[in-house]
Amino acid sequence: MNALDIINKTKRKQVLNYEEISWLVNNFTNGNIPDYQMSAWLMAVCLNDLTEEETLALTYAMRDTGETLRLEFANSVDKHSTGGVGDKTTLIIGPIAAACGMKVAKMSGRGLGHTGGTIDKLESIPGFRTDLSIEEFKSIVNENGFSVIAQNTDLCPADKVMYALRSATATVDNIPLICASIMSKKLATDADCLLLDVKYGSGAFMKTRRDAERLGELMEKIGIAAGKKCKAVISDMNEPLGRNIGNSLEVMEAIEVLRGDSRGELCETCIDLAAEMLYFGGNGDMDECRKMASEAITSGRALEVFRRTIELQGGDPRVCDDLKLLPQPRCSYVIRAMNDIEILAINCEELGMVSMLLGAGRLTRDDEIDYSAGIVMNCKAGDKVTAGSTLMTLYSSICSDFSEAALRALNAVDYRRTGRSASGDR
Amino acid sequence: MNALDIINKTKRKQVLNYEEISWLVNNFTNGNIPDYQMSAWLMAVCLNDLTEEETLALTYAMRDTGETLRLEFANSVDKHSTGGVGDKTTLIIGPIAAACGMKVAKMSGRGLGHTGGTIDKLESIPGFRTDLSIEEFKSIVNENGFSVIAQNTDLCPADKVMYALRSATATVDNIPLICASIMSKKLATDADCLLLDVKYGSGAFMKTRRDAERLGELMEKIGIAAGKKCKAVISDMNEPLGRNIGNSLEVMEAIEVLRGDSRGELCETCIDLAAEMLYFGGNGDMDECRKMASEAITSGRALEVFRRTIELQGGDPRVCDDLKLLPQPRCSYVIRAMNDIEILAINCEELGMVSMLLGAGRLTRDDEIDYSAGIVMNCKAGDKVTAGSTLMTLYSSICSDFSEAALRALNAVDYRRTGRSASGDR
Repeated sequence: MNALDIINKTKRKQVLNYEEISWLVNNFTNGNIPDYQMSAWLMAVCLNDLTEEETLALTYAMRDTGETLRLEFANSVDKHSTGGVGDKTTLIIGPIAAACGMKVAKMSGRGLGHTGGTIDKLESIPGFRTDLSIEEFKSIVNENGFSVIAQNTDLCPADKVMYALRSATATVDNIPLICASIMSKKLATDADCLLLDVKYGSGAFMKTRRDAERLGELMEKIGIAAGKKCKAVISDMNEPLGRNIGNSLEVMEAIEVLRGDSRGELCETCIDLAAEMLYFGGNGDMDECRKMASEAITSGRALEVFRRTIELQGGDPRVCDDLKLLPQPRCSYVIRAMNDIEILAINCEELGMVSMLLGAGRLTRDDEIDYSAGIVMNCKAGDKVTAGSTLMTLYSSICSDFSEAALRALNAVDYRRTGRSASGDR
Repeated sequence: MNALDIINKTKRKQVLNYEEISWLVNNFTNGNIPDYQMSAWLMAVCLNDLTEEETLALTYAMRDTGETLRLEFANSVDKHSTGGVGDKTTLIIGPIAAACGMKVAKMSGRGLGHTGGTIDKLESIPGFRTDLSIEEFKSIVNENGFSVIAQNTDLCPADKVMYALRSATATVDNIPLICASIMSKKLATDADCLLLDVKYGSGAFMKTRRDAERLGELMEKIGIAAGKKCKAVISDMNEPLGRNIGNSLEVMEAIEVLRGDSRGELCETCIDLAAEMLYFGGNGDMDECRKMASEAITSGRALEVFRRTIELQGGDPRVCDDLKLLPQPRCSYVIRAMNDIEILAINCEELGMVSMLLGAGRLTRDDEIDYSAGIVMNCKAGDKVTAGSTLMTLYSSICSDFSEAALRALNAVDYRRTGRSASGDR
């Protein structure tokens, strides 16, 4: 076997078999195939795509370059979100599903670019540790049903090197490659069931619903072929999920939902997603599962699971009762409507970038983050807002000059004037 | 400007402008852009092609990474062949055109793989030097009208590094890239007129007539856009050109044609090509030019030019009178027909490979070659051959065991039996 023949086959739309794909991935990962051959192959994939069988082979080959976890829980479930702005659903769904008897053992990444990471959000809770050993992780899931640890670097080394090369060669946005990257990591962990939340829109990686559907269908097929119960749900990320963007701000909002203090769209979305998990676990039809999920909140059992997970992972569980114990920003900046306006659309990706600017995210992997930083939204598309009322508030502890962030945040809101301005012009 | 944006544009079929292409080529050539980004771009080009304008920009950009020759001859002509098996036309056409008053200043490459190189053929003449200085080269062209030198490494350094990367990444067979590679070198030399001999068939790089025509048209357009008189002729390379394959064997055949001893297909092809050159030079219509070319042979003037070029470049001019002064092979092997057969087709590329095996060519740039090695063909497609007669003879000074070469050579001939076998079976 040689790399040239493999590149040529993909270039000529001939189908590769498992042996060829596995040989390519292994030899690239261990350094026998140079970057320039792999990037030529990746570009050929971007332009000619891979078949489902090839994508499955690629997923397996990437998974098998590293370790595979053996957690051996019955009824275990994992959830993956393709990343969005203000997406704190894991912090809500995990405790709900655990409160209903599922084992939610979640391995998660840190945030990069405009999307946040669940690990960063949880680490904003004072004392919270995500660098658990596999034994600690298993024991917490066993006792309490819900734990989150930082992604293990021994899982899928192929994905790490391939992703770095893809970023540098404009070969990121290909659905089979994205699918194999996500699914190789998911298959390396040991859940029976896999819920995939595929987002589309201005704040997501997939810009159109059609692409999100294609990715979701492909991931579902790969998961099912690998013997998992697997379901992809498609969700809109044209607006931030909930009101808060930023690490401690999102933990606050999650706790509010778990307390039952907030029953809006975010709560409904989480109940729907948790119901999908419960349905996997054989807890009745979707209506019954939705009812179970809702009762986990109203009974306070989901909040108790979250509180106990925080405690077991070294964090201060009192944050569930007193949100002021979470990191508080030193500075804030209120952005108000200058006129009576109607909000037409919100550029969610841009808000993610503003949040990063304020300190909530990383541009490169080594950046430090400000857990208190972020944005609280007071408006969404379709809202009619009167002059002088608050559109959003920016928070930061490290940023004293809000001018650039405020300008970009305001530009992220598309609106039309509906009446007189605050300063009196017509 | 950055490489990712440029890769993305080609990937999305957006047209690059001259500045972008030039930036890419320059920064790759001077090492600022890594191989893996260039190979991703090259693969995107292979799958999405380049426009004519982009190809012209690429050609100029590649040419301008190195020196440009200033020969300043009036009526100068250059010829390029896309490479074939047994293609000794330069050795015949050059002297004919020079004998008719043209200035044929030819820079040529060495052979690699199954096709031979004009430089290797000439160097099989005892004493012949091709590493002339530009001053010597100009002076020989001035005095005698015909000189050939080995390609200068200061010309088109971009082509050298790009070609090496293309070979290693399955991105060789793209017409705009092939065109830019050839034309950047041709434009770096200083001929007024450019005759492009584009070959197709089993022995050529372009396998189909259609691809050869596309390449020829594109090269013509690029040449004309760059201010040259430029013509592409398409020729069949499904069979070797003439009877002999191999360095000194091809020089012998060329001398036979120049002597007027051989008036077959090879001679006619060379007269046609030389006539195209003379037509460029304003020597009348094609019929008149063909007549001039033919008379250059019958008068012996073309042979005199060749003899004098050999002398001026340090070679032994007596080879023109006594072919035995050329390197002679120590061993030979005759391949005969076992039965009465009709030759259906000849795999020309395979014969090129056999010739290489015998010692006539290089697999890698550093291989030594055996000038005496090669093949003399006694059959061509359509011939009816009786049992026992010679199909071809293999020659070598370094190869004593002909078994592999003979087997491959025989397999390169496709035939059907027409009668009884030599050994008497029916």
